[in-house]
Amino acid sequence: MSNFTKPDGFADPQDPKLVADAKKEVVDYEYTYTERDVILYNIGVGATEQDLQWTFEGHEDFSPLLTFGVIPQFHASGSIPLDWLPNFNPAKLLHGEQYLSIKAPIPTSGELVSKARIMEVLDKGKAAAVTSIVETRDKRTGKLIFENQSTVFIRGAGGFGGKRTGMDRGPASAANEPPKRAPDATMEEKTFPSQAALYRLSGDYNPLHILPEFAAIGGFDKPILHGLCSLGIAGKHVYKTYGPFSDIKVRFAGVVYPGETLVTEMWKEGSKVTFLAKVKERNTVVLASAAVTIAEKSKL
Amino acid sequence: MSNFTKPDGFADPQDPKLVADAKKEVVDYEYTYTERDVILYNIGVGATEQDLQWTFEGHEDFSPLLTFGVIPQFHASGSIPLDWLPNFNPAKLLHGEQYLSIKAPIPTSGELVSKARIMEVLDKGKAAAVTSIVETRDKRTGKLIFENQSTVFIRGAGGFGGKRTGMDRGPASAANEPPKRAPDATMEEKTFPSQAALYRLSGDYNPLHILPEFAAIGGFDKPILHGLCSLGIAGKHVYKTYGPFSDIKVRFAGVVYPGETLVTEMWKEGSKVTFLAKVKERNTVVLASAAVTIAEKSKL
Repeated sequence: MSNFTKPDGFADPQDPKLVADAKKEVVDYEYTYTERDVILYNIGVGATEQDLQWTFEGHEDFSPLLTFGVIPQFHASGSIPLDWLPNFNPAKLLHGEQYLSIKAPIPTSGELVSKARIMEVLDKGKAAAVTSIVETRDKRTGKLIFENQSTVFIRGAGGFGGKRTGMDRGPASAANEPPKRAPDATMEEKTFPSQAALYRLSGDYNPLHILPEFAAIGGFDKPILHGLCSLGIAGKHVYKTYGPFSDIKVRFAGVVYPGETLVTEMWKEGSKVTFLAKVKERNTVVLASAAVTIAEKSKL
Repeated sequence: MSNFTKPDGFADPQDPKLVADAKKEVVDYEYTYTERDVILYNIGVGATEQDLQWTFEGHEDFSPLLTFGVIPQFHASGSIPLDWLPNFNPAKLLHGEQYLSIKAPIPTSGELVSKARIMEVLDKGKAAAVTSIVETRDKRTGKLIFENQSTVFIRGAGGFGGKRTGMDRGPASAANEPPKRAPDATMEEKTFPSQAALYRLSGDYNPLHILPEFAAIGGFDKPILHGLCSLGIAGKHVYKTYGPFSDIKVRFAGVVYPGETLVTEMWKEGSKVTFLAKVKERNTVVLASAAVTIAEKSKL
């Protein structure tokens, strides 16, 4: 589904023009889904039989959790070629940040089209930081449903003479430092040991999340929960506490092992809720620089 | 997908000829599935990230749990019209027994075709007992993969002058009384509260399993786990203890509420393992008259 074609001479990583060229390329991705896929996603991020609006297709308010918005675009942003970077090695790639803006009510089923392109390439010295932007539209109506910005860090791929600091991307790049006071609200949830095995079925089949040998190569004690699954769990906590939001941003600061307890700490300031998520058992921050904008009631 | 057409005059429930006619009708049902559906089923009956042969599509022995065999045929057997029975009321229907015979290795994805017909109609006085038989074949090769026999009881629909006792259907109708000795093996597993919500996604969307109001109408305290989900869990216990089997039969004797602990007690006699499943918290038998035939090594 990719219409990406590598330009001639694209192999020279030192040439800033190549970076500029890469940013013009667009990857298209189609995603068709049913209510079953919505329920599977929702359960994958911890919705239960108590949350019938998220787990029973016959409920009058049945809907995807808002963070479902990262799913239809996942393969589009992941399909952007990065092999023009110096010393590119996909095993050295880390998902650094995710920003999701929800532009319209999310259909409970349908066919969506995502268009991904590179937005920004930063040279962090030892690493490259590449931010893609993906617009996801209803295939039939053309209506914009989501915008995603994903930043990946590729260790060992820096030093190509690019700029070090990025543009101001508004909420997508905000630092979202929590206030110094104690959290205004906290919610915790024990993940389940097979949660990564279940969450995979929403589309990210990377064996890092299920195969112990593969996780060991990545330097982890055992398979890790998907960062976007943690995002979904924490987003659900924010939703349950403050209601729907129109965007959400996180930085992936640490890993969660399935079965651990995720604690979301929240601070509300006007329409902005800053939050962070920790693993209770290891007192480690896993989602940082995180915030949502609470939705205007009329819109979502 | 049903090609069932109701014969003229089929509405008179007293006429034994109508029963005979009903038994000639065939319902066809196609089922297409992927490895994702297999994993979803397996997790739905409690397979975990520890059971990579059941939850990781890249595992060299990746396969559906054998009881997946009840899934492709589910809608075929459920589509057989029963409204020719006297006082037929679908709300009075109970799934009484299930027999599954596995005829060939189960593909991990594919397209299957199930043909269902009524095999036997018994007049139990107050209730009718209807047994359907479903053959499920690989659509492409025509190879027989499963045979299922399902018996439903329809309360209030008996008294139509039919015979009371059934034919000998071999293992499908065996009483499978456990020996008097203590079980040779026991395995227990705590179901999870959202397990019915997850198991539904394998195709049985009856709201009895998720909607409290609906469960209350059926006379239950809360939504109940699917009987075929309990079958899958107990079948997994037998598999883990004694290896693959070529057939499995259960009678649904009681209900499981999601979150309760299922205990499978097993007795091995030659190639036959008789078993029963209880809810630990209520010391209630939920699967009775149950047995498997251990598979010959060469066959499955």
